[in-house]
Amino acid sequence: MTSSITDLSRLCIHTMTTKPWNLAETIAGYTSAGVPGITVWRNHIEPYGAEEAGRMLRDSGLRVVSLCRGGFFPARSAADREAARDDNRRAIDEAAAIGAPLVVLVCGAVPGMELAEARQQIMDGIEAVLPHARAAEVKLAIEPLHPMYADDRSAVNTLEQANNMVLAIGSPWVGVTVDVYHCWWDPMLKSEIQRAGNSIFSFHVCDWRTPTRHILTDRGMMGEGCVDIPRIRGWVEDTGFTGPIEVEIFSTEFWDWDQEQLVERIKRAYLSAV
Amino acid sequence: MTSSITDLSRLCIHTMTTKPWNLAETIAGYTSAGVPGITVWRNHIEPYGAEEAGRMLRDSGLRVVSLCRGGFFPARSAADREAARDDNRRAIDEAAAIGAPLVVLVCGAVPGMELAEARQQIMDGIEAVLPHARAAEVKLAIEPLHPMYADDRSAVNTLEQANNMVLAIGSPWVGVTVDVYHCWWDPMLKSEIQRAGNSIFSFHVCDWRTPTRHILTDRGMMGEGCVDIPRIRGWVEDTGFTGPIEVEIFSTEFWDWDQEQLVERIKRAYLSAV
Repeated sequence: MTSSITDLSRLCIHTMTTKPWNLAETIAGYTSAGVPGITVWRNHIEPYGAEEAGRMLRDSGLRVVSLCRGGFFPARSAADREAARDDNRRAIDEAAAIGAPLVVLVCGAVPGMELAEARQQIMDGIEAVLPHARAAEVKLAIEPLHPMYADDRSAVNTLEQANNMVLAIGSPWVGVTVDVYHCWWDPMLKSEIQRAGNSIFSFHVCDWRTPTRHILTDRGMMGEGCVDIPRIRGWVEDTGFTGPIEVEIFSTEFWDWDQEQLVERIKRAYLSAV
Repeated sequence: MTSSITDLSRLCIHTMTTKPWNLAETIAGYTSAGVPGITVWRNHIEPYGAEEAGRMLRDSGLRVVSLCRGGFFPARSAADREAARDDNRRAIDEAAAIGAPLVVLVCGAVPGMELAEARQQIMDGIEAVLPHARAAEVKLAIEPLHPMYADDRSAVNTLEQANNMVLAIGSPWVGVTVDVYHCWWDPMLKSEIQRAGNSIFSFHVCDWRTPTRHILTDRGMMGEGCVDIPRIRGWVEDTGFTGPIEVEIFSTEFWDWDQEQLVERIKRAYLSAV
């Protein structure tokens, strides 16, 4: 039986959810709204640099939950694969600089590259950057992406695959992110969440709209779609997970809203539909 | 090693691929282009009635490969579920009337209904109409649909699920349809095709466009996307499948073309990229 959410203490919002705000506006907006957690996307750090962004975040008192995103390991040439690994090492350094204990990996895919090959390159890439992550004390989370992103965003499309990778890598620094948007349809979801156990490093929520008008930027507000979020949250919490619940919504519709009103809407949806 | 396709003898086109044509135009277009097979969608039969459509198809000499589509079994009320079963029995009768040995099932889903419940209602629905199918000597094929359709089109989203259903039902009249568009991303695809074996009743091809501009109506021409169709065809044929290869493309782009030119384009893509 999933316990109800009665306060905002575990709420975290992704800076991409309120994309029109820069980092300063985001910090001001979340703190004044009483949102305690923030996951920072690299594009929101970039105008400031990681050191300055880290100062701003520490001063804010916000809990920095993770950095999004590393990954995109597969590439046609060895040089491009090495460049991708270097970029992941920079992401790990940025995470350390802003006080994020975790980098979420959108693992990557190359249109037309055999998926089995892309999956191997992902494994190799994670193992190559793992020493850097361990040295920086930053964890890495493999986030399976919805199969509709298998062409160019991630060849890791089920939690079963991500769990198998974590098992094969065998490091306490590598785990998974469970995002209801990507996984809700999966007939193996409950058992794979159970199998993931304490390697669930983070948990993302939003909802699936019917109809979905755009593959990338039409995610729904919690409660306005078909995903039974409390049920999935219950499965995740049955593993012992008590971490933040992160609201990650890419939506051109919501980005057009007044972002303060959007944050208020998120708080209401979080309390009623998560 | 997959053998090359060197002629059009196994080519079949879905009437929905050339949606702007009515059934008479479709028959004329396919026969004059040397396309030997046709899969008929119910909306293309409806203006004529199944008896008249059957006469037209028999006179044409085209091979009628299947009727699309039955399914959509789950519903909130028992009355609606019974109505869905009646509609499937009508689809089976139409298939028999036009000489189609197979009805393809798009199994259905109801936004917000628990997927496990929808899946059970699908099983129950198939078993309920199975005696009618057997009596009419019409087979039923469960077509797993891409997970992006799990909200409102099908709660059966992997070949593994479809295979499990076929196994549970245990009738030679129930098998699966493998459509590369729905299944190409699946890490279990090769082994599940192998497991399906001679319960693969039909095989659909098109391609996955990057970017995909619309969830429903932006399927790509074979060879213009990221799917390795010959590889998947090889897996299917390794099971002993020698049946028609069906081109099913929903594309507002192609529907805007001159449909004769589209059929010629399909023939070239079929010979070069399937």
